[in-house]
Amino acid sequence: MKRLVRFGVSLDQKLLQTFDRHIERRRYTNRSEALRDLIRDNLVTAEWQDDRVTVGTITFVYDHHVRDLTNKLTNMQHDFQEFILTGMHVHLDHDHCLEVLVVKGKGSDIKQVADSIMSVKGVKHGRLAMTTTGKELK
Amino acid sequence: MKRLVRFGVSLDQKLLQTFDRHIERRRYTNRSEALRDLIRDNLVTAEWQDDRVTVGTITFVYDHHVRDLTNKLTNMQHDFQEFILTGMHVHLDHDHCLEVLVVKGKGSDIKQVADSIMSVKGVKHGRLAMTTTGKELK
Amino acid sequence: MKRLVRFGVSLDQKLLQTFDRHIERRRYTNRSEALRDLIRDNLVTAEWQDDRVTVGTITFVYDHHVRDLTNKLTNMQHDFQEFILTGMHVHLDHDHCLEVLVVKGKGSDIKQVADSIMSVKGVKHGRLAMTTTGKELK
Amino acid sequence: MKRLVRFGVSLDQKLLQTFDRHIERRRYTNRSEALRDLIRDNLVTAEWQDDRVTVGTITFVYDHHVRDLTNKLTNMQHDFQEFILTGMHVHLDHDHCLEVLVVKGKGSDIKQVADSIMSVKGVKHGRLAMTTTGKELK
Repeated sequence: MKRLVRFGVSLDQKLLQTFDRHIERRRYTNRSEALRDLIRDNLVTAEWQDDRVTVGTITFVYDHHVRDLTNKLTNMQHDFQEFILTGMHVHLDHDHCLEVLVVKGKGSDIKQVADSIMSVKGVKHGRLAMTTTGKELK
Repeated sequence: MKRLVRFGVSLDQKLLQTFDRHIERRRYTNRSEALRDLIRDNLVTAEWQDDRVTVGTITFVYDHHVRDLTNKLTNMQHDFQEFILTGMHVHLDHDHCLEVLVVKGKGSDIKQVADSIMSVKGVKHGRLAMTTTGKELK
Repeated sequence: MKRLVRFGVSLDQKLLQTFDRHIERRRYTNRSEALRDLIRDNLVTAEWQDDRVTVGTITFVYDHHVRDLTNKLTNMQHDFQEFILTGMHVHLDHDHCLEVLVVKGKGSDIKQVADSIMSVKGVKHGRLAMTTTGKELK
Repeated sequence: MKRLVRFGVSLDQKLLQTFDRHIERRRYTNRSEALRDLIRDNLVTAEWQDDRVTVGTITFVYDHHVRDLTNKLTNMQHDFQEFILTGMHVHLDHDHCLEVLVVKGKGSDIKQVADSIMSVKGVKHGRLAMTTTGKELK
């Protein structure tokens, strides 16, 4: 059950105006929501630094013509299956595939999965997006 | 058709040893592959700075109990459908959903899609992973 | 003349507790100050993206035994003197010097100064810290 | 005593051309130096993650009119004097000062010094630049 609380923040008037213009450009319609997002993003970064159980997505792009690459990537995902919730495959063009894995585990474990995949020959680029289980961020 | 070239790099011996130990821990079996990855990652960052057509994934976590949120997110994705290649939905727990969108377009357009989604009330956290079409990174 | 305004933020109680614990660990004694810092840091990032006149520091480490390096770095700083406010030199050990330059200008100009210095042979590492003139952040 | 070694890297021709164009724009005159910089930057990031003894600079901007602020900052620097090698002060305008501290210690200690300073009321913005003692980066 969620319980909202309300608290006051004091701020210089000019700083508040600058912030309001800024979040309008970032498509916010609501100042509280913009502040909640800053708070949550700050907390997500801390969750990862503290190596708690969390969620991330690993995005990588590869050339599926590289010999044996698809096999290697599949085997690797089986090795790490305790961390991988699901995945999605996109055909970018004749040569290139993009794959996204949703992974859950301690930050250090997820980073190891990401490192392992990105270091495979034929994987051209990869990025880890660190997000959250959402539980701590009511 | 790919054409491999080979060139020499000179480096202090001790620096090379440190680097070799480092990439071993990062799961590389091959020094050339580690260097190619550094080069490609550097170029992907430049692609985004130059606002060229590129590919990214937007990962976001939300509480699907928030009234009208699912509707809003669906409408938004239709507004941006020219940029969104595909998406995937994961049920994290009773309350939380994670969604990943694969987006293609100019860097600035992709960032705008990401900003719009992340600023919706009820979306607790979002991250944009900037990757590549792969074309420039043979 | 500063004029403080006060506004209310509504937040889930549990999220607020998590945030309060987090900022305590980050040495804050005051929630408003922590929020102001999140706001200002967000705005500084935007200032740099919009290429406005701003302030940064360029930190770099080099081996002063590399032939002609000190000369090269001095000449370069003269070429860029319109952007460089001041600098400081620290002897890290027998071989290594650290230098910090305080630079002011449009974000793109400051980045060019940083790129030029970091690309000099013998400069082992460099980082640009993007901060602010402070004017927009009352 | 430095000992240079030379090794070969194989790369797709088109990728190499893209990289050569890229580093030219970044002001490099030499491909080996650009690669050495990528390698060193990668290693510096690892040094910080492994919490080894390293070097950083803390840049912060503050309004010196805030009551008691200068005192507080001075006292704090004395508390952390074992980590602070030196500092520099710049008058940005009538109100604003910029200060840079050069700090040496374990990554986690340096981060604590940075957190403490940035959380002081009146300090408008701060950034930590993580660099290196240079010793591991021959």
